[in-house]
Amino acid sequence: MNASFPGARSDRVPPDPDFERRVRASFDRQGAMRLIGARLGRLGPGYCSVELPYRDDLTQQHGYIHAGIIGAILDSAGGYAGFTLFPANASVLTVEYKLNLVAPAMGERVVAEAEVVKPGRTLAITRGEAYAEREGRRTLCAIMQQTLIVMAETADR
Amino acid sequence: MNASFPGARSDRVPPDPDFERRVRASFDRQGAMRLIGARLGRLGPGYCSVELPYRDDLTQQHGYIHAGIIGAILDSAGGYAGFTLFPANASVLTVEYKLNLVAPAMGERVVAEAEVVKPGRTLAITRGEAYAEREGRRTLCAIMQQTLIVMAETADR
Amino acid sequence: MNASFPGARSDRVPPDPDFERRVRASFDRQGAMRLIGARLGRLGPGYCSVELPYRDDLTQQHGYIHAGIIGAILDSAGGYAGFTLFPANASVLTVEYKLNLVAPAMGERVVAEAEVVKPGRTLAITRGEAYAEREGRRTLCAIMQQTLIVMAETADR
Amino acid sequence: MNASFPGARSDRVPPDPDFERRVRASFDRQGAMRLIGARLGRLGPGYCSVELPYRDDLTQQHGYIHAGIIGAILDSAGGYAGFTLFPANASVLTVEYKLNLVAPAMGERVVAEAEVVKPGRTLAITRGEAYAEREGRRTLCAIMQQTLIVMAETADR
Repeated sequence: MNASFPGARSDRVPPDPDFERRVRASFDRQGAMRLIGARLGRLGPGYCSVELPYRDDLTQQHGYIHAGIIGAILDSAGGYAGFTLFPANASVLTVEYKLNLVAPAMGERVVAEAEVVKPGRTLAITRGEAYAEREGRRTLCAIMQQTLIVMAETADR
Repeated sequence: MNASFPGARSDRVPPDPDFERRVRASFDRQGAMRLIGARLGRLGPGYCSVELPYRDDLTQQHGYIHAGIIGAILDSAGGYAGFTLFPANASVLTVEYKLNLVAPAMGERVVAEAEVVKPGRTLAITRGEAYAEREGRRTLCAIMQQTLIVMAETADR
Repeated sequence: MNASFPGARSDRVPPDPDFERRVRASFDRQGAMRLIGARLGRLGPGYCSVELPYRDDLTQQHGYIHAGIIGAILDSAGGYAGFTLFPANASVLTVEYKLNLVAPAMGERVVAEAEVVKPGRTLAITRGEAYAEREGRRTLCAIMQQTLIVMAETADR
Repeated sequence: MNASFPGARSDRVPPDPDFERRVRASFDRQGAMRLIGARLGRLGPGYCSVELPYRDDLTQQHGYIHAGIIGAILDSAGGYAGFTLFPANASVLTVEYKLNLVAPAMGERVVAEAEVVKPGRTLAITRGEAYAEREGRRTLCAIMQQTLIVMAETADR
C-alpha cells in the first residue's frame, strides 16, 4: 500500500473477501490493457497498481509514452481500486477522470497507482499517480482524480 | 468545421499556412495512434478530428471502448487542434485533460472532435467531444476539456 | 437558449412543468449567491444563466474577479441547468466540476451560462461558459465541465 | 506540513526566502477571501492552508457550504502553495482547477490545504484537500487538482 495516499486506510473492509480474484478476472477481459501490454500489479482494499513496460508503439510524436495511454492505465488503476470495495454483484464504470501530466514519461516502464479517497454506495472517488521508472529511479509523471459509478445488480460478467 | 463549438471562428489564421502537412506528419509519428488504429480525420484552423474504428482489442471489461482509449483519441484530437495554430518552429505537449464519459462507446467507430477555445503564445485551451457511430446514428459518448503548452523553438521533429 | 451548446435541445421536456418556480426558490436559498451579489438570469429546459455584477470585494490580488468566484457562479449555473430537468421531488448536489480560466475577468459584470450535455436518472453532465462584459463587448473568461447527482426523494426544501 | 502529500518535500528551497511576507501581503489583497471570511493559515515551502469559519451566508440551498466557496478556498490555497516557490518578481494566475466534492461541508469551519506536486519555471501543479471540522472531528469534504502559471516579471503589486 502506498502510505502517501489519504485514502490508504487499513480499516477498509471489502464487502467481497474474494475481491482479488474478481478484479483479476475483470482486468483480463479488458482488451485495451492487453493490447498496450499493461499488467495488473498489486491490489489491496481500495488500492490498485497497473504496470506498463515501455514500447515504441505506445508513444506520442516525441517518443514519450502518449498522454492518452498514461490516462488509460490510470483510469484502469482507479477503476479497479474502486472495484475492490464494491459488492460481488456490482460492476464499475468511469464517470470522469482528470489528468495532469507533470513530466514526460520515459524509461523502462510506467507504474500507475490509484487509491479510493471516498467509497460510496453510488459513487466512488479515486486519486492516482503514474511514475516512470528509469535505471532504478522513479519520476512522477502524472496525477489523476476520478469518479466511478457503482452499477448495482450488474455483476461484472 | 463543427459550428456547434464556440471556438470555431473563421477569423483564426494559422501562423504556418502549411499546418496540415505538419500535423499529418506529427500524427504519423504517434505510435500509440497507429497501435489502436486511429486515423486523423478532418483538419481546419483550430479544429481536428480523429476516427477510431471499433476493434475487440480496444475494450474494457463489458465490451465498450475503454474510457482510456476514448481519452487517448480526444487528447490527440485536442493536441492537434491546438497545433494547427502554432508557429512552424513550435511543438505541443498536453498539460492536462479532463474527460466525462456520458454514454458507453459502442458501434462501428468513434469519432473524436476537438476545437481550440482559446489560443495563446504559451498555453492553448481546447474542448472536445467523442461520438459513437452505429448504423448511421451518432451518440455523444464523451466530452473533454484540455490545456496544451506551446513548446517554442522545439520544432516537432 | 444558447444555440452554441450541443446540449441545447428543443426536445428536452422537463418532468416538472413548474421547474422555473422551483429553481428560483432554490437559488434564493443559496446564501453564497446572495453574498456575492449573483442573480439568476435566464432559464430554460436544461439551461441556466447566472449574472454577477463586478464588485471590488470579489477580486483576487490583481483586481480581477477571483477564479473561485467564477467557479462558484458556474457551479450554480450548471447545478440549476441540471435541476430544470429533475423530477419535482428530487434535489441536486455537485459531484465535481473542472474549470479552465481563459482570460482575466474584468468589466461591468460576468455572466455564467450552463447547459445540460447529458441528463440522467442518477447523474447529469453539464458544460458551462463565463463571459466578462465590458463596454458592450463579451469576452470568454472561463469554461467548465460538471457532474451532478440527482438526489431522489429529497425534494429541495 | 502535511506529510500525506507526495509534494511535501523538505528539499524544496523557495527562491525568495521572504516568501511568507509576500504571500500574506498578496492574500490580504484578495477581496474575495475577505468577503467570505477566509484566513490564511499555515505556510511552508510549497504548502498553504486557508481556513474558513462557517457562516450562513456561505451556503447552498441545503445549508452546506457552497461547492463554489469550497472551490474558492482550495483555489487560493493552491495558488499560494505555488506562489511560495516563485521568484520574488513573479506573480501567479490559475490556469485551471478540478474539484471533487466527497462529503457535504458542515461544521464549525472548513480548512483547505494544498501542496505543490510539481514546481516549474512556467507552470506549477498542485493538489489540495478540504476538511470540515465539527466538534473536534475532521471530515474530508473535497479534493482538488490545479494548474498555475508563473507570470514572470510581473511582481504581485
